[in-house]
Amino acid sequence: MQSNQVITLTTDFGLHDPFVGVMKGAILSINPGANVIDLSHGIASHDIREAAFTIGMNYKFFPERTVHVVVVDPGVGSRRRPLLVVTERQYFIGPDNGVFSYVYKKEERTLQVIQITAEHYFLKSKSSTFQGRDVFAPVAAWLSGGKNVLNFGEVITDYRSIDLQLPTLGERFIKGEVIHIDKFGNATTNISQTEIDALVNQKPEASLKVLLSGKEVPMKMYYGEALDKELHSVINSSEYIEFFVNRGSAAKLFNISIGNAVEIHNTP
Amino acid sequence: MQSNQVITLTTDFGLHDPFVGVMKGAILSINPGANVIDLSHGIASHDIREAAFTIGMNYKFFPERTVHVVVVDPGVGSRRRPLLVVTERQYFIGPDNGVFSYVYKKEERTLQVIQITAEHYFLKSKSSTFQGRDVFAPVAAWLSGGKNVLNFGEVITDYRSIDLQLPTLGERFIKGEVIHIDKFGNATTNISQTEIDALVNQKPEASLKVLLSGKEVPMKMYYGEALDKELHSVINSSEYIEFFVNRGSAAKLFNISIGNAVEIHNTP
Amino acid sequence: MQSNQVITLTTDFGLHDPFVGVMKGAILSINPGANVIDLSHGIASHDIREAAFTIGMNYKFFPERTVHVVVVDPGVGSRRRPLLVVTERQYFIGPDNGVFSYVYKKEERTLQVIQITAEHYFLKSKSSTFQGRDVFAPVAAWLSGGKNVLNFGEVITDYRSIDLQLPTLGERFIKGEVIHIDKFGNATTNISQTEIDALVNQKPEASLKVLLSGKEVPMKMYYGEALDKELHSVINSSEYIEFFVNRGSAAKLFNISIGNAVEIHNTP
Repeated sequence: MQSNQVITLTTDFGLHDPFVGVMKGAILSINPGANVIDLSHGIASHDIREAAFTIGMNYKFFPERTVHVVVVDPGVGSRRRPLLVVTERQYFIGPDNGVFSYVYKKEERTLQVIQITAEHYFLKSKSSTFQGRDVFAPVAAWLSGGKNVLNFGEVITDYRSIDLQLPTLGERFIKGEVIHIDKFGNATTNISQTEIDALVNQKPEASLKVLLSGKEVPMKMYYGEALDKELHSVINSSEYIEFFVNRGSAAKLFNISIGNAVEIHNTP
Repeated sequence: MQSNQVITLTTDFGLHDPFVGVMKGAILSINPGANVIDLSHGIASHDIREAAFTIGMNYKFFPERTVHVVVVDPGVGSRRRPLLVVTERQYFIGPDNGVFSYVYKKEERTLQVIQITAEHYFLKSKSSTFQGRDVFAPVAAWLSGGKNVLNFGEVITDYRSIDLQLPTLGERFIKGEVIHIDKFGNATTNISQTEIDALVNQKPEASLKVLLSGKEVPMKMYYGEALDKELHSVINSSEYIEFFVNRGSAAKLFNISIGNAVEIHNTP
Repeated sequence: MQSNQVITLTTDFGLHDPFVGVMKGAILSINPGANVIDLSHGIASHDIREAAFTIGMNYKFFPERTVHVVVVDPGVGSRRRPLLVVTERQYFIGPDNGVFSYVYKKEERTLQVIQITAEHYFLKSKSSTFQGRDVFAPVAAWLSGGKNVLNFGEVITDYRSIDLQLPTLGERFIKGEVIHIDKFGNATTNISQTEIDALVNQKPEASLKVLLSGKEVPMKMYYGEALDKELHSVINSSEYIEFFVNRGSAAKLFNISIGNAVEIHNTP
């Protein structure tokens, strides 16, 4: 068994119940040297979109060979296919419900998706299955311990994706929306540096404006640069446009909700 | 010191305060190679019954030689006896207030209960004792590092148990109750696969019915099999009867509370 | 890279978002053998005082060479100076906003404060910086891996402290206040064993009285000694005067708030 291999967990289990802890027990029973890291257990119950966003924005910050386990599924315990997704640098394990849609898009050049069928790696359970503990955790443990990916099942191509609600890019504008609000009240949009670069490259001799629900919002380089209590926008640490208030909650003070319209204009 | 030894923590401390973190500091100061895993810190304050249930349902999923530390005690910091419970595969450390009652029952064949008296293993504190940090954490660390159990105190037999509220088994019925409601609103009962097997074996030519507060609830094999918004029962992943709603909260939608009567009938 | 080196994290990020998880990813990408421990992520948003108190009361329980990372800053992402604080036994990494004020006071004999300027250790980010992930996490990882402190920047002396609201000591009294209320409703004051010893040594032939908002509160040695529902005081496990109710919330039952006046009288 290889040591210090990282396994991350992303679930909608919360931290009140022992679900997360018992998954770690199942992993360490197989690979005692695994290093299990919580990415987030605060995904809203059954919210595949939030789970996809959380793993999609953060996986690249983990070491090579990390195994990312995502357990967010409205039909958990059902017969939904368990997947092992193999990319150039890392692995992903979870249900075939679209939670890895951002990974599929970003890693499409090297992507290999395997349907996990090798039941001899699963934990035996007399009763209904707790997939996180009985399927995903043991497979992650065996994989992190050095087992080859082809031991777990066959390559498939008909895996499911969700609509990523990508922004639309015009000649002089990008149209997007607010897709996440964090603990501090910062509101992230689905418009990233990549789209902004594309917009600017189309008409370089121009200047950018950011609009939230039709109203212009000034852009800043750092949170700390902004005046208190005023709404500003910034390219955040995930490289997406985000609305924030310095030392305050943008979402509360300016009544921002998921789905609010966002536009970037590139005016002459 | 042995490496990669797992120590689990189960407390009612929550994760807002640094109590859990400082226990880990105390452990790693003694055994830097210990792997400390949170089982749950969401036990209701001072709820010995919930703590007993949480550790009792989950310990078997952890590796051999795991040390399970439980700190839930209405009289924490008091002079209640600290215990080290030794079973065939694992160790348990906590107060003598019944938190290990399920362990006592399940492991009675090989059980050894030691009153921890070896104060030279404790952290010295000038003031009132934080038992988790000053007694349980250091003893767990020394034990996980390889110290023999008999270094910590003497075997006792008068340790305390709580009433486990076991179901009553008749010729054609089991009577039990709801004992836990999880984050998703699933309601666990105290009736397990074992009691159901016993019921069925008494009169094999019959069929089972599950009743909650006197009303029949259909049984399913998987959560995903059930229709949305309808109440169903299932043998859950801990092998207990559980009431659930697919993609919804059974407790909220059907007003289920801890203590609600549950019956299994085996009718001809 | 050295193994088993402990890095602690103290933030106001909460555990809902993936901020804490991604910091761990950044650390383990650099030092796969680091052992990252959560001290607390429940600091109130932007509350420098609570962060200073949390790290100040708990760092001594961690092993030698532990690296403590604190990310609580109203101006996070701003150009505030990142610091590396070196003491006799441990290291501290965080912003220059006073979060290490208790450390400065307790460790003043051996203290060395370095402004982190070695940007080649930072994570490159095209957009606004997430200091926890891009600056503090990588520096902690390189330091825990064995890099010498002088690689990270130059020693400075003009680092910022906050007013620690220390109690005032008279000939026959100490005047202080409530500074923290924990999950159980226990109310900690800023009056420690040290001040009480000083008070008693001035007039040894006397007896102590504790007053909260002008009303006397009996002192106990252990939580469990106190009668239920009654307010008592105790020297807590951090060696500070604390008000508590056995099996209940002192803050709720007796309406205690941060800032309430506390006095210790040493009467003949």
